[in-house]
Amino acid sequence: MSNSNSLAEQYTQFDILIHSVADIDENAIKAVRERDGQLTKPAGSLGELEGLVRHLAGWQGKEKPTLNNPMVAIFAGNHGVTAQGVSPFPAEVTVQMVANFTAGGAAISQICALHELNLRVFELALEIPTKDFTLEPALSDKDCAATIAYGMEAIAGNPDLLCIGEMGIGNTTVASALYAALFGGTGSDWVGRGAGVDDEGLKRKADVVDKGLALHASEQRHPLEILARLGGREIAAMVGSIIAARHKKIPVIIDGFVATSAAAVVFAINPKALDHCIFAHTSKEAAHNIVLEKMGKKALLDLGMRLGEGSGAALAAVLAKTALHLHNNMATFEEAAVSEKSN
Amino acid sequence: MSNSNSLAEQYTQFDILIHSVADIDENAIKAVRERDGQLTKPAGSLGELEGLVRHLAGWQGKEKPTLNNPMVAIFAGNHGVTAQGVSPFPAEVTVQMVANFTAGGAAISQICALHELNLRVFELALEIPTKDFTLEPALSDKDCAATIAYGMEAIAGNPDLLCIGEMGIGNTTVASALYAALFGGTGSDWVGRGAGVDDEGLKRKADVVDKGLALHASEQRHPLEILARLGGREIAAMVGSIIAARHKKIPVIIDGFVATSAAAVVFAINPKALDHCIFAHTSKEAAHNIVLEKMGKKALLDLGMRLGEGSGAALAAVLAKTALHLHNNMATFEEAAVSEKSN
Repeated sequence: MSNSNSLAEQYTQFDILIHSVADIDENAIKAVRERDGQLTKPAGSLGELEGLVRHLAGWQGKEKPTLNNPMVAIFAGNHGVTAQGVSPFPAEVTVQMVANFTAGGAAISQICALHELNLRVFELALEIPTKDFTLEPALSDKDCAATIAYGMEAIAGNPDLLCIGEMGIGNTTVASALYAALFGGTGSDWVGRGAGVDDEGLKRKADVVDKGLALHASEQRHPLEILARLGGREIAAMVGSIIAARHKKIPVIIDGFVATSAAAVVFAINPKALDHCIFAHTSKEAAHNIVLEKMGKKALLDLGMRLGEGSGAALAAVLAKTALHLHNNMATFEEAAVSEKSN
Repeated sequence: MSNSNSLAEQYTQFDILIHSVADIDENAIKAVRERDGQLTKPAGSLGELEGLVRHLAGWQGKEKPTLNNPMVAIFAGNHGVTAQGVSPFPAEVTVQMVANFTAGGAAISQICALHELNLRVFELALEIPTKDFTLEPALSDKDCAATIAYGMEAIAGNPDLLCIGEMGIGNTTVASALYAALFGGTGSDWVGRGAGVDDEGLKRKADVVDKGLALHASEQRHPLEILARLGGREIAAMVGSIIAARHKKIPVIIDGFVATSAAAVVFAINPKALDHCIFAHTSKEAAHNIVLEKMGKKALLDLGMRLGEGSGAALAAVLAKTALHLHNNMATFEEAAVSEKSN
């Protein structure tokens, strides 16, 4: 994962952005800690909920963090590698589910409706699947760079929290290929049952990843070039959105197995560039836990979910909303006339 | 934990109720599974969220489970053992926090307000703390039985989900003593920092538990008699509410370290009598994980929380509300014209 090797010209700007990230705002965190210590509860007793408020404050750079415009962004792409029979669902389901997101019939639509999260769906040229990476690069470097740039525009609505999810039949295979290329190992180390393949399908997924690795990962390539060769449009766009969010002071919640592959590409370039990202949940897809460990991350939830479409990230956002609501609305010891801890 | 030993007459009715629990409604679960299989997502991909809906259906005995009246019940009690210096907070905080719950200043008040959960606080003779169990039984069998019976009334409002939490300065020490008496071990195996004791306080808690065990656990007693000797009013009332909920077809969510001690008393009499209980979260109090393992239970969340007052249970209830909302409102494959999985 050396970054000193080949770097196609199209990626230079992204590489610079990923290397030039600002630090967290320690003053904002300090202000949150101060108020937190006055609230009617033992210090630290809300655990990760308190951590979520500090995360929001630190990455928004606000002593009083907000969640006025939390956004769930779903990035959808299609994959040529579906020709290899890696999913039990036909590729047309990607576009059908995009319609379902908008119509309100999908899980993510209903989580967002119930908990007042804004939902935006970014369709990435669904009519033009990437190429089959067992035969050729999934994307040209030019296309990949353009898609990263498009993903950076996803934050145009100025969300104060960005939840990143995806939809794309075949994309657990794509994510597995990226993990193998970035972190080592072979197909069988990284593939899982995705949307529900049987044993034969699982073997096929591993073989497909191994073919992809043999064709594209034989030399040390820059992570963005690996992304082009083995990735997909929705993953490239998620990479862009992660970078843009960091530079626009927007905290991010990453969904599951596939969304994490975009984070892993950024991590491979500069681990620090992911510090504004919370990992929502541990996917049922077994290798998710492995990649989280490799990146030194711990997910907030572990609910045996493996749906994608931002569903885990949205649940984590509900926790963040709840945490901020408590921080803003709980009484202080003084207001409630509750005796404090003695020393 | 033999139940064939001494059983004070006052407990006979509860012992019978705990032994005569009905099974889950398999037909209701089957109906939920059927609808679930039609919703636009890979089968099983919502993991524990799907499990929550089946749990509601099975224990409510409804093919279409409801959450029209979810209730968080906080049971508050005071403890004579606080005289031994087991908490960094003065005992008066129990009554102060009860006022804070009602006034809306506590964490649980704000979780319930944000997510539309009903909150009820049951004060259990706060002006009459239990006796110091290092010197004598905390409660007489008569008082204990009366408090269990009172706890059974807590479900009078017919909630369709009951979240059980508590408040009581000193009660992590009480819960630790109960665990040691029910499951074995000594004070140091079961005590933790509670609301935030220092190292010295932690040692004191362990000693206090050991004194209680020496005085009250020297012979095999019925779990309800152990409850009287080492427990507290809020724990006895929670025992009653758990039993009553099972017999009135109300699914239960148990909060954290202290609420689980009430569940453990029931478990010690009949493990099956706890099947309607979900364990909300793994408390930061280290021994909580041990007791969950001993009972063969896995908590839904692990957020490093240790507040009590039903806060973890309420968060789990938010997941249950979300899960049921998805189950009721997601589109089916047919409705959304999404292609199904091929075989």
